Amino acid sequence: MHGLDVAPEWDALRRLLPELRGKRVLDLGCGFGWFCRWTAGQGAASVLGVELSERMLARAHAETRDPAVSYLKSDLEQFSPEAEALDLAYSSLAFHYLTGLESWLARVHAALAPGGVLVCSVEHPIMTAPRHQDWSSDASGLPTWPVGAYLDEGPRRTNWLAEGIIKQHRTIGTYLQLLLAAGFILTHLEEWGGRSGSGWRTSGVGEGARTSALPADRLAASPQHPEVDESARIKSAWLTCRSVVRGLMTARGSLSPAPRIFQDVRIGRGPKPR
Amino acid sequence: MHGLDVAPEWDALRRLLPELRGKRVLDLGCGFGWFCRWTAGQGAASVLGVELSERMLARAHAETRDPAVSYLKSDLEQFSPEAEALDLAYSSLAFHYLTGLESWLARVHAALAPGGVLVCSVEHPIMTAPRHQDWSSDASGLPTWPVGAYLDEGPRRTNWLAEGIIKQHRTIGTYLQLLLAAGFILTHLEEWGGRSGSGWRTSGVGEGARTSALPADRLAASPQHPEVDESARIKSAWLTCRSVVRGLMTARGSLSPAPRIFQDVRIGRGPKPR
Repeated sequence: MHGLDVAPEWDALRRLLPELRGKRVLDLGCGFGWFCRWTAGQGAASVLGVELSERMLARAHAETRDPAVSYLKSDLEQFSPEAEALDLAYSSLAFHYLTGLESWLARVHAALAPGGVLVCSVEHPIMTAPRHQDWSSDASGLPTWPVGAYLDEGPRRTNWLAEGIIKQHRTIGTYLQLLLAAGFILTHLEEWGGRSGSGWRTSGVGEGARTSALPADRLAASPQHPEVDESARIKSAWLTCRSVVRGLMTARGSLSPAPRIFQDVRIGRGPKPR
Repeated sequence: MHGLDVAPEWDALRRLLPELRGKRVLDLGCGFGWFCRWTAGQGAASVLGVELSERMLARAHAETRDPAVSYLKSDLEQFSPEAEALDLAYSSLAFHYLTGLESWLARVHAALAPGGVLVCSVEHPIMTAPRHQDWSSDASGLPTWPVGAYLDEGPRRTNWLAEGIIKQHRTIGTYLQLLLAAGFILTHLEEWGGRSGSGWRTSGVGEGARTSALPADRLAASPQHPEVDESARIKSAWLTCRSVVRGLMTARGSLSPAPRIFQDVRIGRGPKPR
C-alpha cells in the first residue's frame, strides 16, 4: 500500500469513496495497480484497472495476487465499459491527458449503475494554465505561480517528470459543466496544493485548510512517480471531485428515472457547455 | 438598463435566470438597483433590493418608478429574509465581501420556496488569492497573474477602485462546498476573465471561450462602478454559478423532502466543509 500512502491526494480521495464491500470498481489509468489492490482488500467484488502503459501493467500484474483484480491494456480515449456494470469509477490524475473528455464522461456515466459514484482527481487548472510554467516570487519573496491564459483551453507541453508531456488544460468551470452535462450530480469538490510554505499555502491555517494539512512525510512522492523530486512536490496540486449518478435518488426509491430530471432542467434553463 | 448592459458579467448571468414573470425576487447587494428594475420589467411580481450603501440606495430610489420594486437598507451579513418567500435570489459580485457566508447561504436557502434558484457571481478566486495583486509578464511578454496563497482563505486588502477595500478570499472548492452544504444543487458554473488579449485569454478561441467573447465595447464599466478604468477592466474576472434548491425535484412532484436526500448522503459519505 506504500504507493497510495505517500500520494498527497490519496487521503482526500479515500474520504470520498463509498463503502466498497461487494462493489464493482473501475480504475481509469490504474498505473501500477495500487488502488486496484487496495480496493480489493476492502472487499470489492471486482476491480478492473485500465492502463495504456505496458511497463506499468507488467508491474501491476506482478504485484497482484487477488483474483478480484484484473487489468486491461487500453487507451482510455477508446475504452468503452459495459453499461450499468459498475458501482464506482475512480480516476486519479488521468483526465487531464484525455482530449475527448466529454464523450468519455458520457461513457463512464452510462457504465455506472444506479447508485454509482465517480471519484476523480485532475491536476489543478491553475497549474496547467500557464504556457510557461515556473514558480516565481512576489515582492515579499513569497512563491507565486504565473497564471496566464487560464481561459485558453487546450494542450500544454510540460517538462515535469518527463520531457514534452502534453496535458489538456481545462478550467474548473469546464470540468464541472462536462460532469453536469454527462448527467452527474456534484456532491464534493476540493482543491489541494501542497503543504504550508508552498506557493499554495503560506500559513497552513484558514477556512479551506481543513483537509489538506498532510504531514510533510506523506508528500514524498506521487503514486505514479515515486521518483518525483522536491520541486515537483511543491508543484503538486490537484482538484478532486465526487459525482454521483442516478442512484443518489433511485437508491432511496423515490425517483425514476432520476437523471432525466436533471437533464431536462439543464437543457431547459442554460446553454450546454461549449 | 445601461448599467447592466455594460457589465461584463451580465450577459452570462442573464442566461442563467429562470423565467421571471410573476416571480418573487431578492437582489442581494443591489447597488443602484439596475437588476431590480430590469427584473420588474420582465414581469416579476415583486423585487426587493438589499444594499448597505445609502448613497447607492438614494440613487436606486430616485431612478425607480415600478411599484413592484422595493429597497431595504441592510447589512447583508445581518439580513434574514422570510422563509420560503422567494423564487429567485440573485447576487452579483457581493459574496466576496461577506465573512459569514456559510450561515448566510443557509438563510438564503431557507428563504427560497420549492423551485427556487440562486444565481450569483463572485470575483474569481484566482484574482482574490494573491496578497500582492498586480499583473506581470511571462518570458514571452504575455500577461500573467501571480497566484500565491490560493489555499490561505481570509481577508485580502486591495486598492482596486478604492483604497483599502477588504475582500474575503475563498477557493472555488470552498464556494461550492458551502453551497452544497447549504442544500443547494449545482447546475451551472462558469468562469470569465476578460476579452482576448487579457491575461485570462490570449487567443479568444478555445473549449471554454464560448460564452465569454463579449465585444470590447461591452466592457466599458462594471455596473457598480461606471467610472472603472482600463486597468480595472482587464483585471475583471468572476465566477458565476446557478444553484437550485429543493424544487428542482419537488416541482416535478417526485421527491419529498428533496433537500434531505442530499444532506443525508453528504453527511454520510464525506466531511462537511471546514
